Amino acid sequence: MTNKKEITAGIIIIGNEVLSGRTKDINTSNLAKWLNTLGIQVKEVRVIPDIETSIVSTVNSLRKKFNYIFTTGGIGPTHDDITAESISKAFNLEYGFHKDAYSILEKYYKPGEFNEGRQKMAKMPTSSKLILNPTSGAPGFYVENVFCLPGVPSILQSMIGGLNNILIGGDPILNITINLRTVESNIASSITEIQNKNKNVEIGSYPFFKAGKLGVSIVLRSSSKEKLNICNLEILNFIKSKNIEIIEEI
Amino acid sequence: MTNKKEITAGIIIIGNEVLSGRTKDINTSNLAKWLNTLGIQVKEVRVIPDIETSIVSTVNSLRKKFNYIFTTGGIGPTHDDITAESISKAFNLEYGFHKDAYSILEKYYKPGEFNEGRQKMAKMPTSSKLILNPTSGAPGFYVENVFCLPGVPSILQSMIGGLNNILIGGDPILNITINLRTVESNIASSITEIQNKNKNVEIGSYPFFKAGKLGVSIVLRSSSKEKLNICNLEILNFIKSKNIEIIEEI
Repeated sequence: MTNKKEITAGIIIIGNEVLSGRTKDINTSNLAKWLNTLGIQVKEVRVIPDIETSIVSTVNSLRKKFNYIFTTGGIGPTHDDITAESISKAFNLEYGFHKDAYSILEKYYKPGEFNEGRQKMAKMPTSSKLILNPTSGAPGFYVENVFCLPGVPSILQSMIGGLNNILIGGDPILNITINLRTVESNIASSITEIQNKNKNVEIGSYPFFKAGKLGVSIVLRSSSKEKLNICNLEILNFIKSKNIEIIEEI
Repeated sequence: MTNKKEITAGIIIIGNEVLSGRTKDINTSNLAKWLNTLGIQVKEVRVIPDIETSIVSTVNSLRKKFNYIFTTGGIGPTHDDITAESISKAFNLEYGFHKDAYSILEKYYKPGEFNEGRQKMAKMPTSSKLILNPTSGAPGFYVENVFCLPGVPSILQSMIGGLNNILIGGDPILNITINLRTVESNIASSITEIQNKNKNVEIGSYPFFKAGKLGVSIVLRSSSKEKLNICNLEILNFIKSKNIEIIEEI
């Protein structure tokens, strides 16, 4: 079996509301799960404020480091929405009305309702490509490997399907989760041994408390189904030998 | 009124489980809200994998940039818990059994149950200071301005109170939220005008969908109560003049 090259992504969450603690970010989890299905692995996430210099430097640093970058937030109509202008600066591209975006928004709103705030949502790097928005009209956009999406999770979710044929992924990452009624320290040394024997499988160990009871989730991840199954079998054998209870649902 | 110096923090979430999308990070929001009450503002969050070189370089880059750094995750007993050893490398400090941590854990477990995995949780920079853990025994630790906490949110939450007298904050950031039954584009230009007149107040505008209805939360943040109140009054006057509905609960 030949492995395709690993394809990586970085996520940049733009928003003071996440840094202040007011909003819990769920876009990272949604984007990561979707990217996994395309064989793209998220390697780093940064949450940064609505400050132009922060956006420009973060985008320019990460876009060279990973195959794809996804930004969320800051593409709406208000004064604190500065992502589109910042991306133009990061790439040194003209910022202004994007012809197709303007036309989409003009048709989306009733005559007389396409006001200044709404027109602002058509401003972006004029040479960028659009990411269509089936929920609320205003499109996202991408320049080279940087894809700019809105911050509202439901709108973001409705838009990403349009990118499935544009992104080029590697081997999808397969995973198996085994939930155990035990504590980490009881299984640590055996899991370490199994990890050392299974270098192509990433084994994660995550304690949880649920309904007042302790447990551990063991998560196996690999792009090779065969190696994943071998590792899974070793863990199941170990669990059986130690008489540890497997929990079906946590 | 004199402004104290702005006191800043960075958060480093260490964990493949967040990057894979399996786990939604809620530690950022909890830490940020707690730090706000101490007058410490979170300026950047990074989510990075369980890889030593990533941890070392991220810690060493951010600890010079912000007053305080908080790491979460990777201080448990399993093979993928490498935060303590990585922090030792970042600071070039000896990694080994911390005398007080060992003693705490030895007392915490019943005789014969202080096994190898549990002993690992006493390994950290030997000269670090401890962050006590009232929930599950194993302490966190800090070196200079870098505070290392566990990834399990309930345990982390139970530990941070112990830092209230150690961290030195600035002026607390006060905030007011006004929820409106409108859309952003209807208020964008007026809010921009008010923002331009109130430079010491950060005005954020966040659209939401709830129970099938659109709305916008306007969030005002400032360390000056007086400036916050002036800005709030201007916004309330504008809302009244436009006959926009205020929603009490969203």
